[in-house]
Parts: sequence; C-alpha cells; structure tokens
Amino acid sequence: MQKKINIGLIGFGVVGEGVYHVLQQTPSLQAEVKKIAIKHIHKKRNAPAELFTDDASLVLFDDEIDVIVELIDDAEIAYEIVKTALQLKKHVVSANKKMIADHLNELIALQNENKVSLLYEAAVCGSIPIIRNLEEYYDNDLLLEISGIVNGSTNFILTKMNEQGLRFDEALHQAQELGFAESNPTLDIEGIDAVNKLSILLKHSFGLPILPDQIFRKGITSITSYDNEYACEKGYEIKLIANAVCTHNHEVQAYVLPCLLPKSHALAKVKDEYNGVLLRSKLADEQILIGKGAGRYPTASAVVSDISALRFAYRYEYRKSNRNKPYHFSTNFELDVLISYAKETTIDRTDFISIEERYISDKRCHLKGRISVQKLQQAHRKDEVSVLVFPAKDVNQNSDLFENDNEIAVENALR
Amino acid sequence: MQKKINIGLIGFGVVGEGVYHVLQQTPSLQAEVKKIAIKHIHKKRNAPAELFTDDASLVLFDDEIDVIVELIDDAEIAYEIVKTALQLKKHVVSANKKMIADHLNELIALQNENKVSLLYEAAVCGSIPIIRNLEEYYDNDLLLEISGIVNGSTNFILTKMNEQGLRFDEALHQAQELGFAESNPTLDIEGIDAVNKLSILLKHSFGLPILPDQIFRKGITSITSYDNEYACEKGYEIKLIANAVCTHNHEVQAYVLPCLLPKSHALAKVKDEYNGVLLRSKLADEQILIGKGAGRYPTASAVVSDISALRFAYRYEYRKSNRNKPYHFSTNFELDVLISYAKETTIDRTDFISIEERYISDKRCHLKGRISVQKLQQAHRKDEVSVLVFPAKDVNQNSDLFENDNEIAVENALR
Repeated sequence: MQKKINIGLIGFGVVGEGVYHVLQQTPSLQAEVKKIAIKHIHKKRNAPAELFTDDASLVLFDDEIDVIVELIDDAEIAYEIVKTALQLKKHVVSANKKMIADHLNELIALQNENKVSLLYEAAVCGSIPIIRNLEEYYDNDLLLEISGIVNGSTNFILTKMNEQGLRFDEALHQAQELGFAESNPTLDIEGIDAVNKLSILLKHSFGLPILPDQIFRKGITSITSYDNEYACEKGYEIKLIANAVCTHNHEVQAYVLPCLLPKSHALAKVKDEYNGVLLRSKLADEQILIGKGAGRYPTASAVVSDISALRFAYRYEYRKSNRNKPYHFSTNFELDVLISYAKETTIDRTDFISIEERYISDKRCHLKGRISVQKLQQAHRKDEVSVLVFPAKDVNQNSDLFENDNEIAVENALR
Repeated sequence: MQKKINIGLIGFGVVGEGVYHVLQQTPSLQAEVKKIAIKHIHKKRNAPAELFTDDASLVLFDDEIDVIVELIDDAEIAYEIVKTALQLKKHVVSANKKMIADHLNELIALQNENKVSLLYEAAVCGSIPIIRNLEEYYDNDLLLEISGIVNGSTNFILTKMNEQGLRFDEALHQAQELGFAESNPTLDIEGIDAVNKLSILLKHSFGLPILPDQIFRKGITSITSYDNEYACEKGYEIKLIANAVCTHNHEVQAYVLPCLLPKSHALAKVKDEYNGVLLRSKLADEQILIGKGAGRYPTASAVVSDISALRFAYRYEYRKSNRNKPYHFSTNFELDVLISYAKETTIDRTDFISIEERYISDKRCHLKGRISVQKLQQAHRKDEVSVLVFPAKDVNQNSDLFENDNEIAVENALR
C-alpha cells in the first residue's frame, strides 16, 4: 500500500481527539484525517470546524477515504458503521471491544469477502501489543495459557483495597474521584469489560469463536473486607483475572473471576491502573507484557500503530482458527475456590467435589474446596456470596508437543 | 513466499538441537532441515546421521536450501558463514549477538543488495520478541527510553546476592553449580554479552549504528557486600542494566552498568534468570516485557518464530535509520552514581561535578555524586572501585512531540 492514507474518523472523544493530534504531529505516517463524524455538531472541538459532520454516511461514502477509524462508545451504532465500511471496501481500525466481541465472526467474514483489513489492537489492553504478538509470535509456539489483568479500573480498586485496606465501596469512590473509574462503573466492576476482551483473546489465542455470554464471569462487587483480610494474611493479592487455559485434550477452559494470586506471581506485581498479560507456552515458557490499558495516549498509540500497519497491508490471519487439530471450548471444568458468605446464607455443601477447609463465625464464614464451574455458576452467582479462585497450577502439564523429549530440564546456555 | 522452506542448519548445540526437534514436531510450519553442518562429525547426535556434514560449504552451496539457520558460538566463523549465505541469496536466521553487533551495518547492506532477509530475534533476550516489537510497534510511537535486564546469568547472581546476602563469588559459584552461568563466565559478568545486545537494540530503537566498544560498560564483578548491604538498607535492588535514553535534543545516551533500582521499579521485580525490558514512549508510556532470555526452548522459540516469519517474506525495515531527524549518539553525559572503594584507594574528588554524600570507614568508603561519563570511564574503571548508577528520572521530559498539548494529564476513559 505505502501510499498516503486518508482517514475518516468516527467519534471525537478522549481517544478520537488523541488520535487526531498524534496524526497531525506525525507527518511521517502520511495519514491524514479527511473527515470526522460526531454526534453533537455544535460542541466546541479542538480541530478545524470544516472537518466535522454529524452525518456518518458522509464519511463512510466518501470515495477519497480509504480507512475508517471507529472510536465511539455505542457498540450497536459502531457495528453498523464498521459493517458498512467493510462492505464499502474500506479498511477499519476500531477500539470497540464490545462490538468486536459480539460480532467478530461476521466481521472477519466481511473483511475476507471485501479483501480489506479490520484491526483492533486498542480494543484489548490499550497500549500492550497483545493481539499483534499473539498473531505473529505465538503462531509457532504452542500456547498453553493466557492470563491477564485486562481492566485498569478494577485493578486500581483492588490495589487500593489491598494496599490501604479499603472496603470495595471506598476504593471505588477513590477511583472515581481520581478519574480511574467511570461514574457508572458497572461494565468494569462486574467484569463485563474483561469478558469482552477475553472473548477477543480466545479467538487470537486458540482460534475459538466464543461470545462473551458463554464465558463464566463474576466481577469484584461482592468482595468483602473479610476476603481482603484473608488474602493479606495468607500472602495473596486479589486480582480480577481473565484466564484461558488449554488442557492436554486440546480443551480450553476460560473465565473472568477474582483470583487469589501469591504475591510472587508475575500478575500480582501489576498494580494500580496497569494491565498485564501472562502468556505461557511450551517453548518460551512464561512471558509477561505490562503496560497501560487505557487513557487517551496509550489507546491512541495502539490505534496509530494499526493505522501504520495498514500502510504495509497488514491484516490478522487468524491462523489458529485453521488448525488441523482445533481446540474445544469447555464449559465443564473444576475450580479450587474460596467462597465466603454471611452466616445466614445457605450454602449447599453437596455442590462441592471436595472441601478442604470450613470456617464459621458470626462475622463471615468461608468454605475452601473444589467445585465444578457449572455448580458454581448455578448456586453461587448471587451477590451476597463472594467467590475467589486459586488459579490451577500446571493444568496442561501433559501437553503432547515434546512427549518424546526429556531434555527440557536444565540448560546451560543462559546467555 | 508461503512455500515449503528448506533449511540448512549450522551448528547442533543446545539451541540447534532444540530447533531441529521443534521443526520435526511442527509439520504445519512446512520447514524441513535438509542438512546440518557441525564441527565434530564423529560425535553422537540425536538426529539421523545422513543429515550431518563437517563441511559448511556443502550446506551453503546447496541450491535446494533457501534458509540458513546459524547457531554456532564462534562469532568470526559465524560472520563468514552468514556473509556467504546472504551473498548466495539465502535468507538467514541467527542467534549470534556478538556477530550481529560487530557487523550489523555490513550485513544489512548485504541483505538489501541480495534482496534476502536476515532475522535474529533470538540474539536479544531469547524468547522476548523485543526486536519485532521495536520494529513494528515503536515505529509510530516516539520511543524515549529502552532499559533492560538482558543477561540471565548476571540477573541470577544478583538475585541471589540480594535475597540471600551472598557475596559475588558465592553467588557466581551457585549459578555455575545450577547451570545458570558458564564455567568461563567472563562474557556475562563483565557485561560484554549485555553490551552486544544493547548495540543491536540501539539500531532498532533509535536507528543508531553503534559498535559494542563505543558503549560505556562495567560488569558486576566489582560489586562488594558493602554495596549489596547499602542497596538492601536503602530499599534498592542492584541490577545490571542496559540502558539507552533519548534526551530532548535527539541525543541518545547509552550504557551497561550496575544500577540501584527502587524495589517498586518494574525491572527490580524481574528475578532469577529472567530477562525484562522496559520501553518508555511518548504515547504508550511504560511497557514492560518479561520472559526467559536463554535456554534451549526459549531460544528455539525465537528462532522458529523467525523461520515462520520468512514464510511471509518478513524482514526488518530499520525504519528508524531513515528518519528525517536522526538521533545522535552521545558519549558526553552525566550520571548520578554511588562509588565505593577501599580506604587506601585514591579517588580524585575533583572528578565529580557535585558530591552529595561522603562516607569513610575502615571497612569501605563511598562517594555519592554526579560525574561525567568520561571522567567515570577514565578514572573509575579499575576493578577495586565499584560503581552503581542511580538511573535518571525524566531525562527526556522536554521531548517535543506534544509540546502544544497540555491534556496528557488525567484521562477518564480507563476501560
């Protein structure tokens, strides 16, 4: 491609304005914003008035525009815009995780049909180039697990709870005061945002087309001071983890749940509003990527990187979707959990496969044990019950890539 | 390209054998090892005997072979092999950091001239895809700093000194016992390996063709228990850091030196044999990549990733070398240091720009102050003087990309 790119920008909010300014100040990219579609045409904007229109179709149907950069909040309108753009054979860059997660298969078909490219690095973990790395690097190595802190608001809240001993509502309030959580924080604290991102990651990690609704999820709203104290006492940190693990049967287990991570765990060290992703693979072992998951410029960085990649005709190949031995998505697996609840709450102990520990007090009770995810989902999704997961160790130890190779052990050439 | 790749493997040591086995077990890569050149033909090998030859030219001049994977230790022989391979219009994958660092400009010219590709992800930080990310992702964002723990042996030694209070020689011995340091550890502990890697990183980060000898370096051999105690008491960790910072004048300052990092620093959390790289950029802010820097399969992972990339005609573009405003390499900058020395050692205090702290005792003395790197190099490179650097904060604060933009501060959209 390598020619000048003409961009139609849809949305001029925090990120949209950031992208506009970065492109303005980076002439080497040879990418020019030709038109900008916005909802409120009379609002004062930090860019020349003649660029703006409140009619998105004027941007979409402009023959001079070859790339649509979609940066609006409303996932349904975004979907219509992106669909139309692809049908009009325009490349699309988007940061809309919900829209991508809800419609990914259809959008991939559309990009293939129209021989254009749909890129969305900014949709998952902002500035962390996780999708690009999954596409390019983990194409060859056998990926065993992806585990991430993919939501900065909740990580900020949990960090404050852990470091300052705040209650959930106090920490949420502080996050809102500091601009680290929205006034309506539901999407974040209920884990909905995280599950959208995990849905996208499942496609790029294991080639699995899984809708957000199919993934077991619980947010951080029901975490109590009791849980927090338990974690501190026992040397854990509570983190909201989006996890997908491949077991030895090419079965993939996934969830978004608050987890108890030992303080030495790589993701336990990811604090405040930072995001972090741990990738575990057969060859490279553990890799960790840490960075800012949101904010104007970190997100703009990912958007601009996608725009730049279009100059070299880059597109996601989704190679893992075309494996000989496809992965299967499992909804039937077991978890080691700590469940805490008020004394008057009825917990059916026969739901558990095994119980390792029971604690009863007037303040709060807990059960530590193993339970199937189905039972957990049915019985303990209620708000007054808090669920914390102990992430599995080596669930995929029996993976078969190197079964004839016993020499993985100690190697000498450290340099 | 997308066709079957025929590989000529040069070297069958720890990594070479690992690459061979991974390719054997990954038929989807469509990459076959056709011939393997080795030094000792009579040594028993874990692969069919008919593959081996002790005449590298039989591999290089084989018309069926289109990719040479060079994995030998000797940098000079490796250079001759890689040069010949490129001249014969064969793609090359190499893991030889010294050879790449010493000859990079010539090799780039050769790859361009012969329209082939030279890839070497495995040469820097093993499994961490740092070169690929610098090439692709930091092409658009303004990179301000790259700072890394790029040598696993020294990180293992320093971790043991810090955690167990061991002396340098004790920790080195333990590392050797456990296979984390070589019997001749000079290249690692003197920082020579790290400086080779930094030389390569300077090319991909800032487009600078700097030979390893041009970079100021001091290893970890002269770190004493006194330094270690100082670090522990003051809440620092000592890490051997390869650092390159871009100042506001497009000037790049680089060194490999033992640094005092606050415990909260992202790289202070990178322990044992792990490598970690921190990238600081104008848009994405801080990004951290952590992973295994060496070992059979982590290194093989990077080599195989390069082989796979060749199927898609991937090559490094070295775009930063062609900037309008090139960076300049500076050998004249200042550092904040802690210098410790025996009482009888003569330290010329007039070498210092400023002295913040002086400590004198029979056991050991120290000076804390600011000094030019030239003075430091002249006067304090001797072995009985230990130098620890306090990394600069915000040396590039005045960078000019967004000078008209005051809104980088607090942003709301954390999701």
